[in-house]
Amino acid sequence: EVSFDPKEHQHLRYNPLRDTWVLVSAHRMKRPWAGQVEKPPEEHIPRYDPRNPLCPGNTRANGEVNSDYDSTFVFENDFPALQPDAPDPGSDQHPLFQSKAARGVCKVMCFHPWSDITLPLMEKHEVVKVIDKWAGLVEELGTTYPWVQIFENKGAMMGCSNPHPHCQVWASNFLPNEPALSDRCQRAYYQKHGEPMLLQYARQEAEKKERVVVESSDWLAVVPYWATWPYQTLLLPRRHVLRINDLTTEEREGLADIMKRLLTKYDNLFEISFPYSMGWHGAPTGPHLKEDNSHWQLHAHYYPPLLRSATVKKFMVGYEMLAQEQRDLTPEQAAEKLRNLPEEHYKSRHN
Amino acid sequence: EVSFDPKEHQHLRYNPLRDTWVLVSAHRMKRPWAGQVEKPPEEHIPRYDPRNPLCPGNTRANGEVNSDYDSTFVFENDFPALQPDAPDPGSDQHPLFQSKAARGVCKVMCFHPWSDITLPLMEKHEVVKVIDKWAGLVEELGTTYPWVQIFENKGAMMGCSNPHPHCQVWASNFLPNEPALSDRCQRAYYQKHGEPMLLQYARQEAEKKERVVVESSDWLAVVPYWATWPYQTLLLPRRHVLRINDLTTEEREGLADIMKRLLTKYDNLFEISFPYSMGWHGAPTGPHLKEDNSHWQLHAHYYPPLLRSATVKKFMVGYEMLAQEQRDLTPEQAAEKLRNLPEEHYKSRHN
Ligand SMILES: O=P(O)(O)O[C@H]1O[C@H](CO)[C@@H](O)[C@H](O)[C@H]1O
Ligand SMILES: O=P(O)(O)O[C@H]1O[C@H](CO)[C@@H](O)[C@H](O)[C@H]1O
Repeated sequence: EVSFDPKEHQHLRYNPLRDTWVLVSAHRMKRPWAGQVEKPPEEHIPRYDPRNPLCPGNTRANGEVNSDYDSTFVFENDFPALQPDAPDPGSDQHPLFQSKAARGVCKVMCFHPWSDITLPLMEKHEVVKVIDKWAGLVEELGTTYPWVQIFENKGAMMGCSNPHPHCQVWASNFLPNEPALSDRCQRAYYQKHGEPMLLQYARQEAEKKERVVVESSDWLAVVPYWATWPYQTLLLPRRHVLRINDLTTEEREGLADIMKRLLTKYDNLFEISFPYSMGWHGAPTGPHLKEDNSHWQLHAHYYPPLLRSATVKKFMVGYEMLAQEQRDLTPEQAAEKLRNLPEEHYKSRHN
Repeated sequence: EVSFDPKEHQHLRYNPLRDTWVLVSAHRMKRPWAGQVEKPPEEHIPRYDPRNPLCPGNTRANGEVNSDYDSTFVFENDFPALQPDAPDPGSDQHPLFQSKAARGVCKVMCFHPWSDITLPLMEKHEVVKVIDKWAGLVEELGTTYPWVQIFENKGAMMGCSNPHPHCQVWASNFLPNEPALSDRCQRAYYQKHGEPMLLQYARQEAEKKERVVVESSDWLAVVPYWATWPYQTLLLPRRHVLRINDLTTEEREGLADIMKRLLTKYDNLFEISFPYSMGWHGAPTGPHLKEDNSHWQLHAHYYPPLLRSATVKKFMVGYEMLAQEQRDLTPEQAAEKLRNLPEEHYKSRHN
């Protein structure tokens, strides 16, 4: 009888936030890779580029001129996927041909006036400014919109088309698929177990330690038990917090600190500016502000695509798209690797 | 009052196979693209490469020698994500740390002895051989396994690491997330409307015409009303068919024919060997063979990543991963473009 070893034996793990399963086949890392190799991220970015529409003082596609900002800077996306005033497609509909009105706003938010800096290399007080601005936008857009999605696509590999450090904020008149699913799952868990799912989860992970990447008195970052992307992490406060704008001043400082630590480890993993998509999920807003959302716990997801090196990513393709997501190393292996990396950024060390 | 125009006004469309919504913002095609550009697919592939483990007569990583095959060729994946005998992770489990045994087999299937050919350029009778082999594998593996996933990752962009024309077949002791969801949706529709969802859908699309790409007396390929990938298609028989091994000889010939037509159009779109992931979904097998699966209709999904050209793909990143999938042209625009392309392959025309 062979005894079960998660590093050797494929198995399924349950994602309670999405009610799905992931196939963990860690032995797959042994196969050689002869497939696509990515271009490593551009290393030499000018601090200021007169043609970059995100730099201070520059003119954007629509003729607007950016302010000469020296901290964060928010403007309306010049090519928004959501606009406030689209007409309704109407309701005369067959069940197989259903459409609905979609309205909203898309904003772009620069983190810093320099193009050649990233969050882990920014000063802590500068990262706090980013967090304050995130909180302000959720507060402001959340007065009317049920969902305000803050997300960052970092790196050309993740579809980012501008090296200037920035994120986007898309607010919509609908609850998108992913938060709607997460809302259902967290609500059902709360009803059954009487405690917010992610609060219980954070406590368990803080005890178990094996999936913890970085932690502090207020915050915890883990490779979740159900991670699909190789170095995926979940970042969340230890206190029960519904939305990013509910964070206290100390918690915002703690968040700036843990973000810098997490992102430094990410950059140190392959000694490149680590690509990822990340975003915040908190309790829904707008009409939902009046409801009881105790089942929610604020958290950020980081989804980085790289698997083996700075140039070889995990492809979520055929089997993953048609059947089920599959991963090639265990979450515990990924967490251990990240945990053991230095907290000093490789760029500071090399200088 | 502006009247609704799907090409100008963003809106949501419902996917009844997944119970999700997609954000359609067709005006986004107007934005310039300054982001990542892919390497176009390799054009000059040798017909036979002594180092390619997929070619006839060659030796693979594990020392096994391929037969000198002259049609299709099936072998066990040398680095399988699923193996028949993995031990059980055990059942002493907290609701947030649930795992399950995963067992199965992973096979690789070559379509043709030549590395420099693809399905649209193969002879019809050769494509019929591929379909017969697919049917045979579903029949064989489906006697015990509840799910047999046939899928093809085509092109380096889709994580394919070998240019030789091939697909994979992964059979598992569990119903993966995607077919489980599709099963639930089709079942609920059948219970409510008394007709298989996709049978009704195919009839409606055949009448409406605006999303049809290619059709024949037996088969239909459409850009589904709810497509997320720019040139995604859904290929399905017009007759009620549960599984690929239920197709008649005539239907298999019809399928070979429509596949060649569809894939020729795909290649003609940007005049490259068009990358995609595709796969078949039919009624579950194994223990499900004894159940009533009348709600199911056999179909194939094609998910091609390209958006603008041979080198610019659609990135399903930040907003898509964290909130909801978004597309940049309407399904009707995509269908029209594909429909109007010639049915003669650009390579035959250029020779
Ligand atoms: O099995 P292959 O072709 O080596 O690998 C490819 O397909 C698999 C199944 O979709 C994926 O898990 C891999 O990420 C991808 O690179
Ligand atoms: O808005 P951007 O940065 O131009 O575009 C990027 O992010 C969007 C939101 O995730 C995606 O829809 C695009 O495919 C991606 O290229």
